[in-house]
Amino acid sequence: MDEKPETGHTHRKAQPGYRWENVELRPYKEDERALFRTITRQVLFSDPDMHGELRYFDIAEGGFSTLERHEHMHAVVILRGRGRCLIGHEVREVAPHDLVTVPAWTWHQFRAAAAEPLGFLCLVNATRDKPQLPTEADLAELKRQPQVAEFLGS
Amino acid sequence: MDEKPETGHTHRKAQPGYRWENVELRPYKEDERALFRTITRQVLFSDPDMHGELRYFDIAEGGFSTLERHEHMHAVVILRGRGRCLIGHEVREVAPHDLVTVPAWTWHQFRAAAAEPLGFLCLVNATRDKPQLPTEADLAELKRQPQVAEFLGS
Repeated sequence: MDEKPETGHTHRKAQPGYRWENVELRPYKEDERALFRTITRQVLFSDPDMHGELRYFDIAEGGFSTLERHEHMHAVVILRGRGRCLIGHEVREVAPHDLVTVPAWTWHQFRAAAAEPLGFLCLVNATRDKPQLPTEADLAELKRQPQVAEFLGS
Repeated sequence: MDEKPETGHTHRKAQPGYRWENVELRPYKEDERALFRTITRQVLFSDPDMHGELRYFDIAEGGFSTLERHEHMHAVVILRGRGRCLIGHEVREVAPHDLVTVPAWTWHQFRAAAAEPLGFLCLVNATRDKPQLPTEADLAELKRQPQVAEFLGS
């Protein structure tokens, strides 16, 4: 419930630095602040009448999101910066307005470039399952592919 | 069903002119091509596993969307250009990255500026009702407010 943006604002203006009027800047994950302090999250749209939620994530230069998988999908639109993402065993360079689909149960991670932040919109279902983290065996399996090992070690 | 983007593309690159790889450019409304030929629609994300759909609409200079209302909500992120929107009885100037919420059963219309296109992402529920058009009485009621009359006549 604390994720809801304030209601009654039909128009919320963009502000400098990928911030928005009446949208709270939050840590990436409430329980892992220390690990991922290079990422922020803003919930742009979340409403009882909507079956999807739209969030904006911003990863600072050199930062990265959790390597995880879950049943729910992600639909991502890159908004700013440069970086790479791992989707399953594929590593892709991403640029503004690129679209990235993370299918169900697919390992994924987003990494900002060393010298540029990476900001993106992420659409998810309003009701969704909790992410799974990789086991040592999962990591070993992923790293069998050289490009994945390079990505995860970068 | 013909609205689905091709599947199997986890990464679809942005192309010049607010187009995307493997995303079809469609008329705004299949049944009203002649009326709204200044608008195009691209379905960016639509998947059986997602409860929301994300579309990109592009309105050419001086163009406008249908004045309509419906039960389902719209969650809009402006991507490019300039324009105005009517949400209920409110007229707002919009600029890139502004957020616009169209609540249930609220009259709405988007208009591009005379000399600039207006492009925006629009999140909706995957299952949704058909829009209603205003009756003469609805229009008269809306136009009782001078700023709405000015907007609709522009």
